[in-house]
Amino acid sequence: MGGSVPRRRRVAVLGAAGFAGALTARLLYRHACFELTALTARTDIGRRLDELYPHHRVPLTLEELDLDRHASALDAAVVAYPHGASGPLVAALHERDVKVVDLSADFRLRDRDLYEQWYREHPAPGLLGKAVYGLPERYREQIREASLVANPGCYPTAALLALGPLARAGLLGDVVIDAKSGVSGAGRAATDKTHFVSADENVNAYSVPRHRHTPEIEQELAAMGATLRVTFTAHLVPLDQGELVSCYVTMRDGDGRDLEALYADAYRREPFVELSAAPPGVRDVRETNICRISVHRDARTGRVIVFGAIDNLWKGAASQAVQNLNLMFGCGEGEGIA
Amino acid sequence: MGGSVPRRRRVAVLGAAGFAGALTARLLYRHACFELTALTARTDIGRRLDELYPHHRVPLTLEELDLDRHASALDAAVVAYPHGASGPLVAALHERDVKVVDLSADFRLRDRDLYEQWYREHPAPGLLGKAVYGLPERYREQIREASLVANPGCYPTAALLALGPLARAGLLGDVVIDAKSGVSGAGRAATDKTHFVSADENVNAYSVPRHRHTPEIEQELAAMGATLRVTFTAHLVPLDQGELVSCYVTMRDGDGRDLEALYADAYRREPFVELSAAPPGVRDVRETNICRISVHRDARTGRVIVFGAIDNLWKGAASQAVQNLNLMFGCGEGEGIA
Amino acid sequence: MGGSVPRRRRVAVLGAAGFAGALTARLLYRHACFELTALTARTDIGRRLDELYPHHRVPLTLEELDLDRHASALDAAVVAYPHGASGPLVAALHERDVKVVDLSADFRLRDRDLYEQWYREHPAPGLLGKAVYGLPERYREQIREASLVANPGCYPTAALLALGPLARAGLLGDVVIDAKSGVSGAGRAATDKTHFVSADENVNAYSVPRHRHTPEIEQELAAMGATLRVTFTAHLVPLDQGELVSCYVTMRDGDGRDLEALYADAYRREPFVELSAAPPGVRDVRETNICRISVHRDARTGRVIVFGAIDNLWKGAASQAVQNLNLMFGCGEGEGIA
Amino acid sequence: MGGSVPRRRRVAVLGAAGFAGALTARLLYRHACFELTALTARTDIGRRLDELYPHHRVPLTLEELDLDRHASALDAAVVAYPHGASGPLVAALHERDVKVVDLSADFRLRDRDLYEQWYREHPAPGLLGKAVYGLPERYREQIREASLVANPGCYPTAALLALGPLARAGLLGDVVIDAKSGVSGAGRAATDKTHFVSADENVNAYSVPRHRHTPEIEQELAAMGATLRVTFTAHLVPLDQGELVSCYVTMRDGDGRDLEALYADAYRREPFVELSAAPPGVRDVRETNICRISVHRDARTGRVIVFGAIDNLWKGAASQAVQNLNLMFGCGEGEGIA
Repeated sequence: MGGSVPRRRRVAVLGAAGFAGALTARLLYRHACFELTALTARTDIGRRLDELYPHHRVPLTLEELDLDRHASALDAAVVAYPHGASGPLVAALHERDVKVVDLSADFRLRDRDLYEQWYREHPAPGLLGKAVYGLPERYREQIREASLVANPGCYPTAALLALGPLARAGLLGDVVIDAKSGVSGAGRAATDKTHFVSADENVNAYSVPRHRHTPEIEQELAAMGATLRVTFTAHLVPLDQGELVSCYVTMRDGDGRDLEALYADAYRREPFVELSAAPPGVRDVRETNICRISVHRDARTGRVIVFGAIDNLWKGAASQAVQNLNLMFGCGEGEGIA
Repeated sequence: MGGSVPRRRRVAVLGAAGFAGALTARLLYRHACFELTALTARTDIGRRLDELYPHHRVPLTLEELDLDRHASALDAAVVAYPHGASGPLVAALHERDVKVVDLSADFRLRDRDLYEQWYREHPAPGLLGKAVYGLPERYREQIREASLVANPGCYPTAALLALGPLARAGLLGDVVIDAKSGVSGAGRAATDKTHFVSADENVNAYSVPRHRHTPEIEQELAAMGATLRVTFTAHLVPLDQGELVSCYVTMRDGDGRDLEALYADAYRREPFVELSAAPPGVRDVRETNICRISVHRDARTGRVIVFGAIDNLWKGAASQAVQNLNLMFGCGEGEGIA
Repeated sequence: MGGSVPRRRRVAVLGAAGFAGALTARLLYRHACFELTALTARTDIGRRLDELYPHHRVPLTLEELDLDRHASALDAAVVAYPHGASGPLVAALHERDVKVVDLSADFRLRDRDLYEQWYREHPAPGLLGKAVYGLPERYREQIREASLVANPGCYPTAALLALGPLARAGLLGDVVIDAKSGVSGAGRAATDKTHFVSADENVNAYSVPRHRHTPEIEQELAAMGATLRVTFTAHLVPLDQGELVSCYVTMRDGDGRDLEALYADAYRREPFVELSAAPPGVRDVRETNICRISVHRDARTGRVIVFGAIDNLWKGAASQAVQNLNLMFGCGEGEGIA
Repeated sequence: MGGSVPRRRRVAVLGAAGFAGALTARLLYRHACFELTALTARTDIGRRLDELYPHHRVPLTLEELDLDRHASALDAAVVAYPHGASGPLVAALHERDVKVVDLSADFRLRDRDLYEQWYREHPAPGLLGKAVYGLPERYREQIREASLVANPGCYPTAALLALGPLARAGLLGDVVIDAKSGVSGAGRAATDKTHFVSADENVNAYSVPRHRHTPEIEQELAAMGATLRVTFTAHLVPLDQGELVSCYVTMRDGDGRDLEALYADAYRREPFVELSAAPPGVRDVRETNICRISVHRDARTGRVIVFGAIDNLWKGAASQAVQNLNLMFGCGEGEGIA
């Protein structure tokens, strides 16, 4: 005669006015396991989210954060603040026993010095030991137990899924990663760079040669056994959502390896990784939580080329955050995002 | 042997940091009749224009305006300020005997009350009687003699060229104008609306139902003998430069008229108006001073449909300003823009 | 305990290689009430749909149609053939007691002469009396009982939803409809017109002045009491999915009417019509079954302007077909498309 | 008292219906040194070029090739045929003493075996020794004397200009080239791949891992002293014209070298190479013959990253062909393309 229906967990999105926060709100607003109880923001206070983003159809109003009031009513929060601003808020939530998925970079790098070398003074170093890196395909079990999950950067998500099987097999000698991202990756801020007339009919690289996602990729490759310095360059392309990483790998042994089999084995049970014979297009994964990967060997040069395509706002941010929340609260991993 | 080479006239662009001003600078920088001696701006002082707009390749630096110094060295100026801000500057230049082409709306409407009804208090009403409306296809002779030319709005340029032959022939009964413009028409300001992610994969109308170009179109149609109220609506489409007006005309008599002949007669000698049998695309006139027009009669409804395509930054702003300067200084009308 | 679970109905998409057919397949492949048992096509036989359209993720293979075999195993079919080709197939399915939603124009016009005047010799005139026009907001009850539903054209869908309240209230005097559609509306055929380089950075009108959706709009407005000839023009804009109709209405009386109230009353209970104060953008309805509408009165001219935005492949084709199937088989109207 | 005016040379474009041929026709139609006397094509015979490409404004009609008649009236021809088809035509023109710039790949590779390994049986091997590789920045003097110039591929043009200074300085150890091209690079053929709906909102790699421009790049790097196998991958991005190569160089010595100075020295006198501190965007070179280059050293990895941006239809094809013609006939190198 049926057990009791599990209570839906109360969750808020803090920083819901930006692209990733707003999409997270959309996904949680219709979620079987979560009740979206509040949206806070640092701009646009008092406006309804469906006024800012009609297509998300979330009829909730953006509020100013009232930490005590909000935290007391929450089981979990997704924080979508810029790096540096996120850390103190995450710490405050942690103190109040609110589980957090943090979309910023503040807890992705386990080493404080490394963070400070690439970003700024760390805003909450005491929490670094608590955070789990939120790439479910890699840390699924730890995420289930975590109270703080650092949601990966969009480029590291695609790059690590593309390179993981080679790294874990000890085959990764050296790698150049050339990434292309849609303009939503640059965030909601209206700037010369995100102006339609700048981005349209254009392609160019940015943050050369020190993009901040580089140490994040290196940290996680090292954790898989591949300690190396990667060359990583990001480009802006004229599309709204979508990201492709093209990874050029100099192999370490591995001449005889069947790479298709290696990847098939690695991802056989992964619900959100898809292998393809042809190079994936970002259109293939638009508005999904899927990473689509193809691997190719260039017999002439010995190089292996791996492509990974994701939607930077979904698997690269919001839907991966929900995937992590699902794991943290024992909900089906694909609930609300499949 | 031979006559003396005419001196190139000294010209400046005031307000050269925006899209229209910058393009005007590009066209004047390589012009046989003009020497571009200064660029001023209200933002980006000290930056070179080719840093802001590499593709224009104008290696001049944006300066702060020093009215006395700048004006004393000029034969002419193109003013690319917003409406309201333009008027006082134009008046000051006029006093100093500098000929002006003004890209703003401040001197387009001959009637002060009408201006104030649609815009704001008029900033320089004393000059209204001096200004010539800068549509060369209509006021060529007056422009040659003018010291102040009010460069038309982009939508009025296309609409008046599309509707002019019908208006002058007394055939214009009523008209609905549905316009589509690329995002450069919204200006260089980075806003939610001009953000790539807002404009991409989108079409929507704006300033409904009172777009400020409406009275300008009505004024000039009335000057051609067609006194009527027009319905005008503008839409933003996801492209950078280009503008199409689709004009739906309820005819006043004219059932038997050969419209192709009417238009061919009207534009036979116009170097920058092109007639086409098929509906023009904005791509057909990209980066040109040309307005491309087609006229169609719908036998079922009796309506006549006229399409006019221009590049909003060229014929809709900068190249038409140069066309006007050419006329004002006795240079070939197409010099530097053909 | 409880009642038996209702059998899922067996359905096929015939003509699944094109954009609308393929999207219909995607929606039906994951549908609670239907089992997608076959996909047939006239090209690409033997290829899997997820090879042609990876983002739809339908792992079924396109087969050649074997009418007897396929029909015998079906409760319903969605036919996505071109007009003229569709009629005979629909007739054959009808004879075999397979319920049909037809995406072509063959059964939209109730008058054979009208069809033949705008299209060609009618391929199956005997069925004209059986077909119900598949606009649920207008013919919901008839669709529930229908065995043949003629899915509306994309432009008529948006135009009729935008103009319906005015037409039924007797307020529609005259109307100009200016429509803008994304390139998917031109179909999957690779042509000069659908080539990226033709459509990008372009806007132009096509099928001027006799677009075939005109009589369909007129027929349905007349059925609502507004017998008039409409001026309808379609434009191609550089985006993939989305369609906006801008309707310029000369009113018949109605000066004092509260139009917001009229529209709110008309659509209060409609799950897939959304009213908005600001002009809708096509991005607001991308990948939804929703039509988003705003209505504006221009006090100067007395004209009323109504905008309607849909996704041409969804509400303009595939998801509306599924909405119709849902009604025909007693499934929840929004099942699989909300 | 004045020398005689030099006769304008008679030139034809053979294969003028495609993108590159049509643009070449536009550039030659208004050229001071050349008279464009004929356009031939293999499709669209009898149509005017300004019907196919209104924006080029070339009012000439496409004719079927009549070799004897056409050749007898020509000083030069630009051949824009596909590889394989071009060779025999070029040979026939050569026999008739018509100088040729060939846009195909047929005479780019000096080694017949190499050509046959990457393409097909060579159509005119006897001419291989006559052809000069048409990269003026590299072979200017040979081009002046040439009767047959093989116009470089678009990717090799950008890659060789980007890598040339490193190669000639003996610094090029290994290189990965990741290229992004607008859709015009795929040619005028309407295919699934060039359909707007495929290319829009998409990025993907193609011809992996054996793109045919690879041996052309290797041949020319070897000629500069850098014998190595390059990893080259091309991607399609959603824009019409423009191409960016991102070159990841493993250096061979060169730690202390001032790379900015190296590039400045290399290109000081080149009219069509532009150096920039920031990574170039393809928008910066749209509709120009310019290659814009930036060079960056990544201190962490030791890698050097060089970006090169061109317009694939201009410097990557048509305007470079005109640059070559200018050199072959003693006209100013930038005539008609600056």
